[in-house]
Amino acid sequence: MNANRKLMMLGVAVVLGGMLLFLTCAPQKPEPVRTGTIADGEIDPAKWGQVYPLEYDRWKMTKDPKPAGKSKYKKGYDKDLVIYDKLSEYPYLALLYHGWGFGIEYNESRGHHYMVTDQLEIDPSRTAAGGVCLSCKSPYAAVLEKQLGPEYFKMKYIDAHAKIPKEFQELGVACIECHDNKTMGLRLYHPAALESFKFIGQDPAKMTRQELRSATCGQCHVTYIIPRDQNMKPVGLFFPWQGSKPGDISVENIIKVMRKDPSVIKTELGHNEWKQAVTGYPVAYIRHPEYEFYTRNSTHWNAGVACADCHMPYIKVGANKISDHDVTSPLKTDMKACQQCHTESPEWLKNQVTVIQDRTVSLMFRSGYATSVAAKLIEMVHQAQKDGKQIDQKLYDQAKDLYLEAFYRVNYINAENSVGFHNPSEGGRILGDALAMAGKAEALLRQALTKAGVEVPANVNLELAKYLNKRGIKPLNFKAEQELKDPFGLQEKLTPAASLGIAAAAPTPAAPATPKAPAAPAAPPTAPKK
Amino acid sequence: MNANRKLMMLGVAVVLGGMLLFLTCAPQKPEPVRTGTIADGEIDPAKWGQVYPLEYDRWKMTKDPKPAGKSKYKKGYDKDLVIYDKLSEYPYLALLYHGWGFGIEYNESRGHHYMVTDQLEIDPSRTAAGGVCLSCKSPYAAVLEKQLGPEYFKMKYIDAHAKIPKEFQELGVACIECHDNKTMGLRLYHPAALESFKFIGQDPAKMTRQELRSATCGQCHVTYIIPRDQNMKPVGLFFPWQGSKPGDISVENIIKVMRKDPSVIKTELGHNEWKQAVTGYPVAYIRHPEYEFYTRNSTHWNAGVACADCHMPYIKVGANKISDHDVTSPLKTDMKACQQCHTESPEWLKNQVTVIQDRTVSLMFRSGYATSVAAKLIEMVHQAQKDGKQIDQKLYDQAKDLYLEAFYRVNYINAENSVGFHNPSEGGRILGDALAMAGKAEALLRQALTKAGVEVPANVNLELAKYLNKRGIKPLNFKAEQELKDPFGLQEKLTPAASLGIAAAAPTPAAPATPKAPAAPAAPPTAPKK
Repeated sequence: MNANRKLMMLGVAVVLGGMLLFLTCAPQKPEPVRTGTIADGEIDPAKWGQVYPLEYDRWKMTKDPKPAGKSKYKKGYDKDLVIYDKLSEYPYLALLYHGWGFGIEYNESRGHHYMVTDQLEIDPSRTAAGGVCLSCKSPYAAVLEKQLGPEYFKMKYIDAHAKIPKEFQELGVACIECHDNKTMGLRLYHPAALESFKFIGQDPAKMTRQELRSATCGQCHVTYIIPRDQNMKPVGLFFPWQGSKPGDISVENIIKVMRKDPSVIKTELGHNEWKQAVTGYPVAYIRHPEYEFYTRNSTHWNAGVACADCHMPYIKVGANKISDHDVTSPLKTDMKACQQCHTESPEWLKNQVTVIQDRTVSLMFRSGYATSVAAKLIEMVHQAQKDGKQIDQKLYDQAKDLYLEAFYRVNYINAENSVGFHNPSEGGRILGDALAMAGKAEALLRQALTKAGVEVPANVNLELAKYLNKRGIKPLNFKAEQELKDPFGLQEKLTPAASLGIAAAAPTPAAPATPKAPAAPAAPPTAPKK
Repeated sequence: MNANRKLMMLGVAVVLGGMLLFLTCAPQKPEPVRTGTIADGEIDPAKWGQVYPLEYDRWKMTKDPKPAGKSKYKKGYDKDLVIYDKLSEYPYLALLYHGWGFGIEYNESRGHHYMVTDQLEIDPSRTAAGGVCLSCKSPYAAVLEKQLGPEYFKMKYIDAHAKIPKEFQELGVACIECHDNKTMGLRLYHPAALESFKFIGQDPAKMTRQELRSATCGQCHVTYIIPRDQNMKPVGLFFPWQGSKPGDISVENIIKVMRKDPSVIKTELGHNEWKQAVTGYPVAYIRHPEYEFYTRNSTHWNAGVACADCHMPYIKVGANKISDHDVTSPLKTDMKACQQCHTESPEWLKNQVTVIQDRTVSLMFRSGYATSVAAKLIEMVHQAQKDGKQIDQKLYDQAKDLYLEAFYRVNYINAENSVGFHNPSEGGRILGDALAMAGKAEALLRQALTKAGVEVPANVNLELAKYLNKRGIKPLNFKAEQELKDPFGLQEKLTPAASLGIAAAAPTPAAPATPKAPAAPAAPPTAPKK
């Protein structure tokens, strides 16, 4: 081997080595200098923001309306500044929730910034439960709970709210609720969450980082139960997860816990919170079960995707890569979050979401109206009984049980904020079950009514105008332009437009704003019939 | 620059250049020598196999049973050699298909090799329509159609079959049905497919290769209509795609075409083929609509995945890469096909399939039984009418319409061979609609019956034993060990086990095989009631 060849080989070795070095040992990225520390128990986000200014800036942006026209079904708080009324979008909800704050004013939500503001601005019936309503809305809720004990739960909402330091009275979710002030690692903060994860055998302190990137969201994006004392005053808050396990918090089990026999849980009303006006039934209520729905064998969950991966994707700010604290739907940001894993175009990705949501919305209408028809038949049964007619008790009891099962399923999917996308086939399954149960309830009720000599029209009039108009102290009316339509055009075959009774009493234009006194809290529901 | 440095740089350039060359211009892979040409119109696969021996070898393997225990729901033809009886797996099908060949013997299918053999071995009621039954089973069908004209459709099945050259009488799908003999490119072969793709404005000759990799399968994996003359003799074959378009052949449109008013299509029975025994209704029938279901906005289809990508993935044989002609489900080959795109483990991938199929099967049971209950109520109505009772015609007509809509949807998903996997949320949507319609039908029927003074039990007895046992000439009985169960355990709430009537008449052990003469073809159904 001559010198030249040796030299050449050396040269090759150096170049290849250099390439390898470049690939594996790139120089460390510059990290911003941390300008201070954060005191234990510090709630003020501005203080956290001094140390983490980039995240803080993005967090503040949850105040800004997002671009309009990005999402077909979850319009949220867009630049058109329209507040979308869920009861106008899904009119059957006005019937099903009549007798309850959600049946008075129920809007598509704005960004995290508005969590408390929205409570202050909404019809006061929505916060009638009291201080407990702050639990997932204000970082001060946990402080108040510590300071005041269980009394905090049952205080009037405005009294509890007044105990929050003035400058933070409209502060929504804050840094402290997800982050450890020393390590900036994630951890749970909310007492109800800390307690309830134990029900499924999970110790939040032992969760992996990726588990926490969902569980921190799952502190609030879950449904819960507000147990009450004999005077219907709230005494606590927990998630109905008893008997479930991680990755398998099923709608079936949630309903089972919610419907637990009052005699077992030793309260008069069980876990019921309100009385459904049309049926007269005391019922519980399911709120935003995103965590439960998403974590039950959805494709994305099973693929290891955490809430934050899609809703707080990594972004570049200057030379830094941060998790985007302007929490929002990927639809609002042109599917950028999706493109971290999916190579398809934004249009293609958006189409996939819409395809799934179209199918889900179709079944939401199908099951929402089927359950509404059953509710109206139950109302007819009760009227018939008042009129002295004899109703077959066995048929009625079976129908009531099936009706409630259907109702909670409709409630579950309508409260869940992804219109099926978080777990498409599970959404279809749940709504399919709702349809099976509502249909059977309708069948047994028609039989019972007919047997009692009551004439039942083939298409029951749902009288929706009655529930949609003159709602609450504002008062609110049906907004026809916001009503969503079955994308497959089949609903007409089951509940013809004429039978909806929406047009029956066209809303008069809203009266000039002369706010009335807040309505008295709804009377406690009567004990459920056995 | 000294000589050494020059040499070193030269060396680097040579190495880098060589690397580039290696990456972009790897030597051509060896291609096998083609040993001959294939004559025009050559049907014998052995002749094609002389030129393409690797594909031919794999094609022959569709004869072999596949490993057992790989698929929870589509057990097919496994090494356990059990033939799975779909009527035992899904007992409601025995009721719904009673009066029709599929209600007598209906098995999970074996591999492509057995396409004709299965027809020869199955209860002859299944081939009562005649020569038309060969259309998708034998490559000779198109030849016979050309030779004999429309007469071929109405010939007795055994007579038409006898016209196939003896050595090919058990030949299933062959090379010629997908491939051009000169270029080996894909193209359509079946007359009905060539005709029907025109209905959706597609010219098969202009399809891309990837489109053809699905459309060639779509020649047979579709549902079709056998139009009949006044004597109920088949006169042709087409796909009910009129009014649909590519990527949007909806179940709604298929049902619309199938249910077309007989007066419009100028035949006595419209597109109905048989009379459903329980209801007495003339009905059409939906077969294996894989192409329609899959191509309607499924995620995989929208991602550009063709049937062959999953069911005929590329494999290495020696130094060659070929499309695997041992067509089968990815579940049977440990998800290897999926791993072409998905990096997850086979166990993970399989779990995703099972999650989706569990949810679909649950809704299949829910909707299958709901539709069966409605069918039994229709039977009760007809009995009541015979007994001189007055049935409210308006309620009945509406119920009948809804029942038929539900029936075809149940038929559609139960005939589709992926248990929902090909298009999960679409499957849920279709079954949800079936539930909405069956539930409403049940409701109106219970009302009509009660109004007429007929006592209807809360849980209608489905008398399944009557439909499940002593089927056909063999005769076949219910195989309890094959019955599938609702994976979510909710069916019991809607149709309690006792109401199924399965145990009512426990099957006697099958009599020793003394084959009876083939049953006479089913009598033509009577004209549908308007």
